[in-house]
Amino acid sequence: MTSKETRVGERMGVVTLVGGGPGDPGLVTVAGRDAIAAADVILTDRLVPQAALAWARPDAEIIDVAKVPGGRSTEQDEINRLLIEHAKAGNDVVRFKGGDSFVFGRGGEELLACADAGIEARVIPGVSSATAVPAVAGIPLTHRGLTQAFTVVSGHVPPGHPDSTVDWAALARSGSTLVVMMGVRTLGDIAEALVSAGLDPATPAAVIADGATPSQRVVRSDLSGIAQAASEADIAPPAVTVIGDVAALDLVEHA
Amino acid sequence: MTSKETRVGERMGVVTLVGGGPGDPGLVTVAGRDAIAAADVILTDRLVPQAALAWARPDAEIIDVAKVPGGRSTEQDEINRLLIEHAKAGNDVVRFKGGDSFVFGRGGEELLACADAGIEARVIPGVSSATAVPAVAGIPLTHRGLTQAFTVVSGHVPPGHPDSTVDWAALARSGSTLVVMMGVRTLGDIAEALVSAGLDPATPAAVIADGATPSQRVVRSDLSGIAQAASEADIAPPAVTVIGDVAALDLVEHA
Repeated sequence: MTSKETRVGERMGVVTLVGGGPGDPGLVTVAGRDAIAAADVILTDRLVPQAALAWARPDAEIIDVAKVPGGRSTEQDEINRLLIEHAKAGNDVVRFKGGDSFVFGRGGEELLACADAGIEARVIPGVSSATAVPAVAGIPLTHRGLTQAFTVVSGHVPPGHPDSTVDWAALARSGSTLVVMMGVRTLGDIAEALVSAGLDPATPAAVIADGATPSQRVVRSDLSGIAQAASEADIAPPAVTVIGDVAALDLVEHA
Repeated sequence: MTSKETRVGERMGVVTLVGGGPGDPGLVTVAGRDAIAAADVILTDRLVPQAALAWARPDAEIIDVAKVPGGRSTEQDEINRLLIEHAKAGNDVVRFKGGDSFVFGRGGEELLACADAGIEARVIPGVSSATAVPAVAGIPLTHRGLTQAFTVVSGHVPPGHPDSTVDWAALARSGSTLVVMMGVRTLGDIAEALVSAGLDPATPAAVIADGATPSQRVVRSDLSGIAQAASEADIAPPAVTVIGDVAALDLVEHA
């Protein structure tokens, strides 16, 4: 073995977390595209813009981690293990994820796993579905005179659940536009909790499914009716729900 | 005048709102870069990644609207007027802005002005500084077990101000990570209002100035000390403040 080969063999790869945005490949960042084009190994997921994988090198290894068996935490352990294994073998690895890796994307856990293993890791933020999906649907999360704040909240753990760290009653009174991610299944419980806490049942609400993709659909109602309206329209994940006065706006249709 | 010339003269341009991300040109989206490269006229601003303007055509007209005279609302009226004037003259116009056009970016007002003038407009969402600046600084806004929500709030209108639509006391109790934009000047008032409402003065806090640029600086303290720490470090706008348990994390330094 020559000295050069030894050094090549010893070089550890770098892990790059790339946020893929809400679904349109045009909403991947320039730096994200460059990282995909340079990667030796790409760990991809269900909700990434699939067309963006065409930017990968022909010889890059693409691993779909949505197909990793086991429950949700087994899956994350296995993803962390794959990131480290491939980087230790000298490969530059991209972890490609829908939205932004740090907005309910478990990017923090992946960085910590890399750090513990002595692997260099970096972050390329993505366009978060929380802000972009409403924008593409014509709903501005902030609008002069209407709102000075918005709250992005996971609907995965519903109000009243023992694991919930969110005070939904306080959110109802906050004056903040609410953006619920991963809340299709729990939307009825969420709306009920907000109304119980005093939020006007006539507050405008909109559910956007498959946002920023050709199959995008928007369902509008008021807070009291939004869960039923979404259910009648057969809305399925991924979907983003906006609750607040801005949800009555439709700036794209106007234009 | 030939028929072709008439048609060219009558064609109205399209206005595209492009979010430029937090400061690094690599964080402009692929679609945003394409729009910049194709534009006849670009209305740019103080907080865009300036290097991204190199993607413009050599013959494109670049107008720096940060230099428009007059107060803040005169300025927005003048920006709207310029968008419409150039599009009516047959030019494809890009409105290029830092962050995302719909997160405190007045994109909604620009879309409405275009619609009123009969101009076609479209939105290319950007990477919001609210999510990306903390990520690049190693602070995940959501982290498993720590937080299921974050609130992005403008510090431009401080707590207790008659124009404020935000219930800061409710935010203090919400269990949500707080991300304060445009709050350098009002940070002391904000911290005081949150502590008065019961948020633990020992809650971790971080101010990130010039995020995602080579001059990025991060100041950390607890909620009770963050305003003084930022002041002592001569932190100036633009800056993003994160308040909540995640502000104690530093995943980039670990890695």
